[in-house]
Amino acid sequence: MKKIGILGGGQLGRMMLQAAANYPCTTYVLEKSTDAPAAHLCDVFVTGDIRVYDDVLAFGRSVDVLTIEIEHVNIEALKVLEAEGKRVIPSVAVLETIADKGLQKEFYQAHGIATSAFVLTENRQDVAQYEKRLPAVHKLCKGGYDGKGVQMVNSASDFEKAFDAPAVLEDKVEVEKEVAVLVARDATGNTVAYPPVEMIFDPVYNLVDYLVSPANLSEAEQESAVALAHQVVEAFQSPGLFAIELLMDKGGKFWVNETAPRVHNSGHHSIEGNYCSQFDMLIRLLLEWPMGNTDMTEPALMANIIGPEGLSGNVKLEGLQEVLSLQGVYLHWYGKHDTKPGRKLGHLTILGETTRSIALLKSIRKVLRISGI
Amino acid sequence: MKKIGILGGGQLGRMMLQAAANYPCTTYVLEKSTDAPAAHLCDVFVTGDIRVYDDVLAFGRSVDVLTIEIEHVNIEALKVLEAEGKRVIPSVAVLETIADKGLQKEFYQAHGIATSAFVLTENRQDVAQYEKRLPAVHKLCKGGYDGKGVQMVNSASDFEKAFDAPAVLEDKVEVEKEVAVLVARDATGNTVAYPPVEMIFDPVYNLVDYLVSPANLSEAEQESAVALAHQVVEAFQSPGLFAIELLMDKGGKFWVNETAPRVHNSGHHSIEGNYCSQFDMLIRLLLEWPMGNTDMTEPALMANIIGPEGLSGNVKLEGLQEVLSLQGVYLHWYGKHDTKPGRKLGHLTILGETTRSIALLKSIRKVLRISGI
Repeated sequence: MKKIGILGGGQLGRMMLQAAANYPCTTYVLEKSTDAPAAHLCDVFVTGDIRVYDDVLAFGRSVDVLTIEIEHVNIEALKVLEAEGKRVIPSVAVLETIADKGLQKEFYQAHGIATSAFVLTENRQDVAQYEKRLPAVHKLCKGGYDGKGVQMVNSASDFEKAFDAPAVLEDKVEVEKEVAVLVARDATGNTVAYPPVEMIFDPVYNLVDYLVSPANLSEAEQESAVALAHQVVEAFQSPGLFAIELLMDKGGKFWVNETAPRVHNSGHHSIEGNYCSQFDMLIRLLLEWPMGNTDMTEPALMANIIGPEGLSGNVKLEGLQEVLSLQGVYLHWYGKHDTKPGRKLGHLTILGETTRSIALLKSIRKVLRISGI
Repeated sequence: MKKIGILGGGQLGRMMLQAAANYPCTTYVLEKSTDAPAAHLCDVFVTGDIRVYDDVLAFGRSVDVLTIEIEHVNIEALKVLEAEGKRVIPSVAVLETIADKGLQKEFYQAHGIATSAFVLTENRQDVAQYEKRLPAVHKLCKGGYDGKGVQMVNSASDFEKAFDAPAVLEDKVEVEKEVAVLVARDATGNTVAYPPVEMIFDPVYNLVDYLVSPANLSEAEQESAVALAHQVVEAFQSPGLFAIELLMDKGGKFWVNETAPRVHNSGHHSIEGNYCSQFDMLIRLLLEWPMGNTDMTEPALMANIIGPEGLSGNVKLEGLQEVLSLQGVYLHWYGKHDTKPGRKLGHLTILGETTRSIALLKSIRKVLRISGI
């Protein structure tokens, strides 16, 4: 049986391993702590740091195919492994490009992929010369994650808080909708896309509030979203599963915001809402098996369960009696022992017609409570 | 988080653990070998024998709620645990009744549940006095499993091969169809049934060839099947998930064949074919949460992948390239290292209209090969 290695042991690994248990394969996870969400679901858990060269190299040499759960891994070790003939999915070149938001933007530009105009800034001082471009979005080239490392620079008075490290200053797109398209690409270059989903943002916190599948798009809009996502994956020329986040402007034109070359939060609805989930799809790609069916089973809504402000430490979930009595509601709890503000602790998927699901989500939020132990 | 203990680490445990990973809980498995299909998917694996008093007692005391994967467990230890206040699902009384096919038949009789007429036989010699009842089915009271311990006694010439141990001699029902109904019952006595499924037997080997959901029954037939299954579960007065195997005779009347008080092979289609799978349902019951939705998502066919005659030892599966390229086909491989003739190695579920699924199954059987390594 093929040995699949996953760099990282968080919730994405956890859901990959639930899917992998359907197939003939052996699973390996590299992560720092045996407390990690994926730690107990793999065949072989290896304690180590995905950012440390020696750890990644040794781990990679022990498996047949490697994938990632997060982009922040030791790229140098992966380069060596790829050179030695190890299958790394996505390819190391993709990871290098994605890991640096500046390189990522230049990549889109070089491949004629629609993305908002931008300049690279070296430090805080550097930003001040671009007053004419404001309002703009300022994104750290490296290390951003889950909304961290991104901020608006609306006017000159914001210059003092601009990132004082290499960053991208992007023209602000007047966003009508935010849409994500998952695309899978196999080793021979065949690609399949999932129906686009729409991310609905909380206007106060500027965080994804929930995600609906399918996105509320005209047929023409849907086609251009999928075409743009395919263009991105085609440019990367790598097997893997890709989540392409798109901005649709007021004129109905799509722009690539960014790409995650892995299973992604914007695809969690696919476990119940599509015939082949994103996790199943990636496992198929790793094992070099045919790609699955991306069709929807039913409309779905997915909402993250997030650690609330002001609460840290051991965590429990209350209100499940009420929530699990609701028809069509699926819980995915990630088994994290500790919460902290903004931490993803789980998600809910609600199957069925969108208006009903939104109403259900509102009632769920009245009863589902994350609290300390 | 509640600690769930599973006695047994086979494929049923494996699929339970895949479902349990969605919920806040900690999972424990008691099994002899860390090679077992469920061993690597639990939080805590305990090496021990589910038939050994001390092993079951110690294991049971370490968890909050206990369930089984197979009926052949140490009942005496479970009695002590139940007396100590441990939740055991199903209740120990149910396990005692089910574990002995004679007691099981007497139970149905005592509760006025339709089951074929029978006598109990103590040994081979004993059987000879019942020539007038032939043809009949002879079933060992204890230890039968997966078609073992069951045989036809058609005429006096078969007496010499009759079981020489306590057994049940049942009148043969002229079977039109074999149907299974899964019923879940919670701690407060609420019950929900899954739509009945039909088991199609291989006429040569007298083994379940495949299972189709829903069973091809008239509305009235479906209602009487479900009503009879509810009657069985009501009689047992225990929380749990129950698979009730029914025989429908040529006149359309249903008879209880036997009951499994646990997740069961006749419910494997529910992973993809019903909104709440039997595994998800059992985990909900163990955690005292509301029962899920038993409605079908789509018609489904389920076929076991069985170790072929003449092959033992290390095993691999060939032909997956072709099989996984077929729309609607789901593989569940149990990760067993060794095959032997008749061993359940995995199963396939095919979603969609039944005639199409049967045709697909035929083509799959031409390409899917189990072979030695």
